[in-house]
Amino acid sequence: MGGEPFVAAVDWGTSSFRLWLLSRDGAVLGEARSDEGMMKAMETGFAAVLERHLAELGAPEGLPAVACGMVGARQGWKEAAYIDTPASLDDAAARAVKVEHSRDMRILPGVAQRDPHWPDVMRGEETQLLGVIASGMRAGLVCMPGTHSKWVALEDGAVARFATFMTGETYAVLASHSILRLAIDEGQQVAADDPVFVRAVREAVDEPNLAIGRLFSIRSGPLLGLRDGAEGGARLSGLLIGLEIAGARARFGSGDTALVASGRLGTLYAAALDAVGARVQAIDADKAVRAGLLRAANTIWGDGT
Amino acid sequence: MGGEPFVAAVDWGTSSFRLWLLSRDGAVLGEARSDEGMMKAMETGFAAVLERHLAELGAPEGLPAVACGMVGARQGWKEAAYIDTPASLDDAAARAVKVEHSRDMRILPGVAQRDPHWPDVMRGEETQLLGVIASGMRAGLVCMPGTHSKWVALEDGAVARFATFMTGETYAVLASHSILRLAIDEGQQVAADDPVFVRAVREAVDEPNLAIGRLFSIRSGPLLGLRDGAEGGARLSGLLIGLEIAGARARFGSGDTALVASGRLGTLYAAALDAVGARVQAIDADKAVRAGLLRAANTIWGDGT
Repeated sequence: MGGEPFVAAVDWGTSSFRLWLLSRDGAVLGEARSDEGMMKAMETGFAAVLERHLAELGAPEGLPAVACGMVGARQGWKEAAYIDTPASLDDAAARAVKVEHSRDMRILPGVAQRDPHWPDVMRGEETQLLGVIASGMRAGLVCMPGTHSKWVALEDGAVARFATFMTGETYAVLASHSILRLAIDEGQQVAADDPVFVRAVREAVDEPNLAIGRLFSIRSGPLLGLRDGAEGGARLSGLLIGLEIAGARARFGSGDTALVASGRLGTLYAAALDAVGARVQAIDADKAVRAGLLRAANTIWGDGT
Repeated sequence: MGGEPFVAAVDWGTSSFRLWLLSRDGAVLGEARSDEGMMKAMETGFAAVLERHLAELGAPEGLPAVACGMVGARQGWKEAAYIDTPASLDDAAARAVKVEHSRDMRILPGVAQRDPHWPDVMRGEETQLLGVIASGMRAGLVCMPGTHSKWVALEDGAVARFATFMTGETYAVLASHSILRLAIDEGQQVAADDPVFVRAVREAVDEPNLAIGRLFSIRSGPLLGLRDGAEGGARLSGLLIGLEIAGARARFGSGDTALVASGRLGTLYAAALDAVGARVQAIDADKAVRAGLLRAANTIWGDGT
C-alpha cells in the first residue's frame, strides 16, 4: 500500500509553505515548497494556495489534508485555539480544527503556557515534537533553533514547560539595522567550525553577564585594527546563541539535549552545544514535522489497523 | 569680563549639533541646536554649518572654537586620533587637532581602549568626563546612558577602563523591526515611575541569565491576555537597562555611581539604578560637556590668569 497517498501534510508557517503527499507508512510521494506562508496567503487566499499545489502534484480529489503552524493563528485560515501546558501532544492531534473546505482539511492547535511569569506560545513546533515522541523519545530537553528558538521540557509525551528565545530575529535586526551592520557582511554565512564563532559561544555561556557588553566590540574591534573585520557575523552569532544556551540552562538545566533542526542552523547549534559540553542527539526537523503530521492524521482518520 | 564671548563650544555628534558661546567663566551667552550632526554635515560641509550658526548668534569674527564628538571621526571634519586608556582627560584637551579654517578651530580626540579582549571607543563622552573632573570628581564609576551607553571607571582624573552597551539602539531596533513591534506603541514614552519598568529592571539585574528569555513574553503575554498590551515599551526598556546594569556590575562592581545624563533618559536611569540599590549622584550632561569644552579651551588658549 506504500504507493497510495494517505494524507496531504502541510507545514504552514509565517513565511513558508511546505506540503508533502504521504503514504500510510510515511513515504514521501510528492513534495512542494514555496514562500506562500501566512503573510502571503492572507492576501491570495489559503484555499487557493493549497489547492493549486495539490493539483500540481496530481493529488486525488478526496485526499484529506492536515496542517500545522501559523495557518492556525487568529489571522490564519481558521483559528485553532492553543492547548495549554502541560500539553499532551497526542491530545493536540485530537484537538485539530476542521476547516470549511471542499476536502477534509484539519488544522492542528499550537501550545500556550499560561504562566503569568512565563507566558509563551508555539505554533508548529508542537507538531515536530509529536514526531519526536512518535520516534520513541517521550521525555527530556529539546532545542528547536530558529527565528524564535524554542527550548522545551518534555515529560511523558507532553510539553511540560518551554521558553522562546528571539535569537535569530535579534541577529537579523542587529545585523541589518544597528551600528553593527558596518561590521557584518550580510550575505556571509557563519561556518560552524569557525573558531571565532566557537569562542564567542563559550564566552557567552561562561560569562553571560559580560556578553551583552561584548556586542559593541564587534564594531570597535575592527575599528581599532584589533580584530579582523570579516569576523563580525560569526562573533555576533556566537554571542547570541551562547546567551540563548545560557538562558535555557538557567531555566531547564544542562542535561542531554535533543536538537530538532535542519540544514545550516542545525550544524551551527550542534557545534555550539558541543563547544559547551552538551551531549546532543540530532533530529532532522523536516522528518520530525512529517512524522508529527502523519501521527496526527492517524489519530484523526484512523491508522488503518 | 563675564559678558564677553571667550570661546565657541561645540558638541557635534552623529546626528546632533549643539553650540554655545561661553564667557571665560562659563556663562552661556548664546546657544544653537540643530540636527546637523556629522551625517548631515558630511553633505552640506562642516565649515558652512559652523559659520552659519555663529553668524546667526552674532559671534565675533576671530572667536576661537573647540568641538568634541563624531566631528573628529575619520569621516568627520578632520580626524582627531584617539588617545589610549589609561587616558588622562587633561591630556585629551592638550591633544586637540587644529582644523584648516578661517578661525582658530580645534577638535578634541576620543578615547580608545586597545585591549584585545575589550576593544572599545568613545567620542564626545570624554569631554563630558573632562567636565566631571573639572567639578572635582576625579575617581569613581560613571554611567553615561544613551544610544550607546558608556560605563567608565575614572581613576585619578583619567579614563582607566570603560564599556559600551548598545542599550538604546537595541531598544530601537527591537521595537521597530522585530515581532515586539506588535506589542510596543512607538510613540509612547516610558515613565520612570511605571511599576512595570521598575519590576523589569529588578528582574534583569537579579537574574540576568533569565532576562534574554523574557523578551518574547512582551509579545506572548498580551497575546494570551496575561499582560496589559500597553506595558510592552516599559517592559522592554526595563529588561534592557537591567541587563546593562548587570553587565556593568560584572565588569566594574556595584559602587556609588555618577550618572551623567539629561532629560528623560536621566530620570529613567536614575529610577533604574535606585531600584537596584545603587547610590547615584546625578550630573547634568549638558552642563558637563560645556564645562569640559571650557576646560579644554582654557588648556588650549590659556585661562587668562
